[in-house]
Amino acid sequence: MLVHTISEVREKVREWKKQGLTVGLVPTMGALHAGHKSLIDKSVEKCDKTVVSVFVNPIQFCPGEDLDKYPRTLDADEKLCNEAGVDIVFAPSPKEMYGEGHIMSNDFLTYVIPPFFYVNKLCGKSRVGHFDGVCTVVNKLFNIVQPDFAFFGEKDRQQLIILKKMVNDLNIPIEIISCPIVREESGLALSSRNKYLSEEDKKDALALSKILFNIKACYNKGVTDCNALTETAYSYLNQKHSLEYLEFRDENDLEEKKTADDGTIVFIALKIGEVRLIDNISLRA
Amino acid sequence: MLVHTISEVREKVREWKKQGLTVGLVPTMGALHAGHKSLIDKSVEKCDKTVVSVFVNPIQFCPGEDLDKYPRTLDADEKLCNEAGVDIVFAPSPKEMYGEGHIMSNDFLTYVIPPFFYVNKLCGKSRVGHFDGVCTVVNKLFNIVQPDFAFFGEKDRQQLIILKKMVNDLNIPIEIISCPIVREESGLALSSRNKYLSEEDKKDALALSKILFNIKACYNKGVTDCNALTETAYSYLNQKHSLEYLEFRDENDLEEKKTADDGTIVFIALKIGEVRLIDNISLRA
Repeated sequence: MLVHTISEVREKVREWKKQGLTVGLVPTMGALHAGHKSLIDKSVEKCDKTVVSVFVNPIQFCPGEDLDKYPRTLDADEKLCNEAGVDIVFAPSPKEMYGEGHIMSNDFLTYVIPPFFYVNKLCGKSRVGHFDGVCTVVNKLFNIVQPDFAFFGEKDRQQLIILKKMVNDLNIPIEIISCPIVREESGLALSSRNKYLSEEDKKDALALSKILFNIKACYNKGVTDCNALTETAYSYLNQKHSLEYLEFRDENDLEEKKTADDGTIVFIALKIGEVRLIDNISLRA
Repeated sequence: MLVHTISEVREKVREWKKQGLTVGLVPTMGALHAGHKSLIDKSVEKCDKTVVSVFVNPIQFCPGEDLDKYPRTLDADEKLCNEAGVDIVFAPSPKEMYGEGHIMSNDFLTYVIPPFFYVNKLCGKSRVGHFDGVCTVVNKLFNIVQPDFAFFGEKDRQQLIILKKMVNDLNIPIEIISCPIVREESGLALSSRNKYLSEEDKKDALALSKILFNIKACYNKGVTDCNALTETAYSYLNQKHSLEYLEFRDENDLEEKKTADDGTIVFIALKIGEVRLIDNISLRA
């Protein structure tokens, strides 16, 4: 069932709760692919009822980013959800989420702001304000749907860590379930932004997963010095790649690692032309 | 019943909700007086169950403020609550609320930040970060207790307006109920900080309510020019008063008023020695 208003989704969830049913929420920006599908499947399996939100959240896009051209495919998204057994697709307008004038600056809107230590690195460094927008909209969605469980992909690992921190810091009575990255056979991590890639770009995009897989292979052979592990990456880069970061950080608090261990996540971001891609891998076996 | 842990209060509330009972929350910093009592009475009357939280919240005190000497009277508070029919007094430690190391800076803690336009004036001007701390702790308490209604006094009117804005902006499924200021017969608004006042200070403190009552009387006689209304205040001030602000603002969004109307709130703050007192009045009949 497709619903566009907060009051409709609340009414439905209230009915479910009265019946003692558990509710899962899968927050998305739409343009659903097999990665989202894996989150949806997990929710449908684990919870009595599943809500998928589809909302391209304006306040998490920075100036100059792809808000206007971000892919919007609501009909296809709804179809995928229906076939997967989703109970509600919640697709609100920006006006429904941010009010009449929908003034979205922090001059006039209450924000949920993640800790500086978690956002002053990795994607947060180039996407200033991005995680403020993410935490704010996810907090709103949590309050609107009041799910028991919420499902997020490990593809956006910094986001996942920040949202877990938000849930913990604000005592939000929801359990966050994380789901592994889904990859094409080639190794490329699925992303709605892959739609921006030409066939040739896609070949170049394999550098991300190749670098990560190679680092993990070296770690498994006993290399733990992060500088040494980083150096193995350079052979995969060509002049079309603009590397934004390749970093080793703790899986819980994003502290930098000099020596890799099982609790280490390797994060990478690089640009191919105008398209910015991210990926990451846990060194745990 | 006095409880100190989040898990205990959650367990109790879960039982109540299963029985379909409504829950009211009265968040306080303790040192309860007849003002708090009026909030508690309203909750006990309106809701099946009432939780009073007693927590002197460190993160809403600014450097140099009275965190350490803020009055703490938990035994008396508990007695007052029991006699008023409160079901749970929730008195957590800072560690229970902010975690093991209880690091409370925005480097390491997720904050709820009210809009700049609502905090860059009145008390927010001198108490930088105060309302960030208030919104964050109230958000946490809301998530911990998950009440249907939460009760706040009009004494802290800027706080009340900011919290209503937070509830609206973040779609929090709780209704905020506001309660009128309770005054001594002299007119002095009740405040936990009145304990800092000597008998002589208390006489000087009457200036706040006298100024507000006089302004309202003039408004009722037809004076609407805010400058003219402000001027009537000066006759009540002596050299022991240090006036911080006397301002006319909109009851919903705190916009400044040049011409008073029924939707106007008159806000005053002044210091008597080291003690800072606030008061306000609505011009609505």
